[in-house]
Amino acid sequence: MTTDNVTSQDSPLRRFIAVIPAGGVGTRLWPLSRAAAPKFLHDLTGSGSTLLRATYDRLGPLADNRVLVVTGQAHEAAVCLQLPELQESDLVLESEPKDSGAAIGLAAAILHRRNPETIMGSFAADQVISPEELFQEAVREAIHVAAAGKIVTIGIKPTHPSTGFGYIRTGARLDIEGAPNAHDVAVFVEKPSEEVARKYVESGNYVWNAGMFVAPVALMLKHLEANQPELFKGLDEIAAAWDTPDRDEVTARVWPTLPKIAIDYAVAEPAAEAGDVAVVPGTFRWDDVGDFAAIGRLNSAREVDEVTVLGEGARVFTENASGVVVSDTKRVIALIGIKDVVIVDTPDALLVTTKQHAQRVKGAVDALKASGDTDVL
Amino acid sequence: MTTDNVTSQDSPLRRFIAVIPAGGVGTRLWPLSRAAAPKFLHDLTGSGSTLLRATYDRLGPLADNRVLVVTGQAHEAAVCLQLPELQESDLVLESEPKDSGAAIGLAAAILHRRNPETIMGSFAADQVISPEELFQEAVREAIHVAAAGKIVTIGIKPTHPSTGFGYIRTGARLDIEGAPNAHDVAVFVEKPSEEVARKYVESGNYVWNAGMFVAPVALMLKHLEANQPELFKGLDEIAAAWDTPDRDEVTARVWPTLPKIAIDYAVAEPAAEAGDVAVVPGTFRWDDVGDFAAIGRLNSAREVDEVTVLGEGARVFTENASGVVVSDTKRVIALIGIKDVVIVDTPDALLVTTKQHAQRVKGAVDALKASGDTDVL
Repeated sequence: MTTDNVTSQDSPLRRFIAVIPAGGVGTRLWPLSRAAAPKFLHDLTGSGSTLLRATYDRLGPLADNRVLVVTGQAHEAAVCLQLPELQESDLVLESEPKDSGAAIGLAAAILHRRNPETIMGSFAADQVISPEELFQEAVREAIHVAAAGKIVTIGIKPTHPSTGFGYIRTGARLDIEGAPNAHDVAVFVEKPSEEVARKYVESGNYVWNAGMFVAPVALMLKHLEANQPELFKGLDEIAAAWDTPDRDEVTARVWPTLPKIAIDYAVAEPAAEAGDVAVVPGTFRWDDVGDFAAIGRLNSAREVDEVTVLGEGARVFTENASGVVVSDTKRVIALIGIKDVVIVDTPDALLVTTKQHAQRVKGAVDALKASGDTDVL
Repeated sequence: MTTDNVTSQDSPLRRFIAVIPAGGVGTRLWPLSRAAAPKFLHDLTGSGSTLLRATYDRLGPLADNRVLVVTGQAHEAAVCLQLPELQESDLVLESEPKDSGAAIGLAAAILHRRNPETIMGSFAADQVISPEELFQEAVREAIHVAAAGKIVTIGIKPTHPSTGFGYIRTGARLDIEGAPNAHDVAVFVEKPSEEVARKYVESGNYVWNAGMFVAPVALMLKHLEANQPELFKGLDEIAAAWDTPDRDEVTARVWPTLPKIAIDYAVAEPAAEAGDVAVVPGTFRWDDVGDFAAIGRLNSAREVDEVTVLGEGARVFTENASGVVVSDTKRVIALIGIKDVVIVDTPDALLVTTKQHAQRVKGAVDALKASGDTDVL
């Protein structure tokens, strides 16, 4: 990425840098997604692009290719293979996972050292969004709101009373040029019961919290310092050394000591209480590909009878069957008389479940971990 | 096997030679059982023995190890590995499958050439029987009845109104020394409807046709000649050449021309009409391992929660699941929230079905055949 000498007098869009935290194993997509090959390194939509690549392509035009990727050291080679345009300064490698507070906080601190006027936008590497134009429109609005001194989350207009997401209650409409749809955030609320979720959706005052936000790095760090002073201090120390020969020494010493906390608790929620968070509702389609049922939804390309097949090598034969088959093998898979089944076929692990139970895969992974069968995790 | 100079004045047991037709792919057990590794070459009961080996061990003591195995040329090596005690003269290799009429008829013709007084007993290589003592008792009775000039089938006392087997209606009790349970066969009947099967079972006059029979080879050939003169002529020509240097030439010329017909139609049913067939009811447990539900029944050794696991390498994890897993891989298999499932996991093919639909595997194999995916059949 090119580091222009951008100032707050420039168009807010010129101050924008996209941050892609590429972390999380995607346990609920095991055995396809696993520690060595997490969700964001897979093409889960049949588009021909991995989720990471698609995320980059969606953000690149907004940020004029000023993109910072934060990921685990173990994924460096895979990420660089996916994003050959990344330069060394565009990649932040974590020696061990420290949750989103440290990952996104470090990005903010590094970008702040490089240029304190930067507006960052953080977008997870493993979400599916379409159409891109509506997404980019929302981000542009959010950048204008951020330039006015807000941390801006992009909320998703709910399509159903999901109990799998947190919600954001919108407050008063804001009057900011270039951001006709921006509102204050009244409050972040945790994943609700289905009954509560239904009320949220009916009220029209709630959007899903998709974990996307846009903010001036200085404002991010101000709230981080106020709420997590220890984390802030450590990240600031690492950021000071980042673009110097001391990076490795300082990082190796400080990073392991940092507290693990989600960015929501470290920054977004306390900042909302302080009245510093706005929301731009997104009207694009959004999917966090949370389970294999989602993969079934997102892939309509290849159907064998009533079975959605993901994976080019698989030879699937069905008789009176329905569901989803995800395969990264070339095996013949025969399904007979089985409905709403979810089958994930990899060279060393096989998952068989149902669409209804697809969310419970995490439990199996925990059981495998407990049993010591970590070679397939 | 040793060819003693046995005559009809000797104990009938001394005249007995066991024949094991080891054919049939076991399509309903695909992908575990397949053309290259048919059912009889698998240990489907977790006993540590293949079905073929177990069949041999069950018959060996009855026949003083006079056993003739009829199998496909493709299985010669595997059969000899399983039965290292076989001598060259104990093995009849078919260049192509010709159904049971030709296979068992050829055995009868060869044995007749070697000694016309022989009583043969034919027992498929892929059935599961216990306890062996009750089986051997029934065979001994059958040998005595055969010595009195009958083709003797061993019928199985039905445990439920199966629609998957043919039935035999028993006739008058016979008065033969050493065979207190022998009856005439009134008639062979085809696989019945469930309603009819229930009546059969309630009547107490029917037994399952397990395809096991004991007969003087001369009587077998007499009926074969009467009912299938063309088949008889061909088999007689091959048998005449069998123990001579002409075997290969004659077999290569004649075998491919022989008609395909089941031994039931070629011999057993017409012989029953002629009043020449008797039945000895077997009270042993008998299973033809017709599908994966049977494998679940026969293997109680290793249970992971409610899932029966066959295959030593498989690492199976379950949550709220039940059914059968048959694996000859070492993969991790996770089953979540799926009931009565049947999973057969092999290196190049995977079957997922339910106990209820396990009988329909044959349809999948036919579909694969039609599609040209014959590499996994």
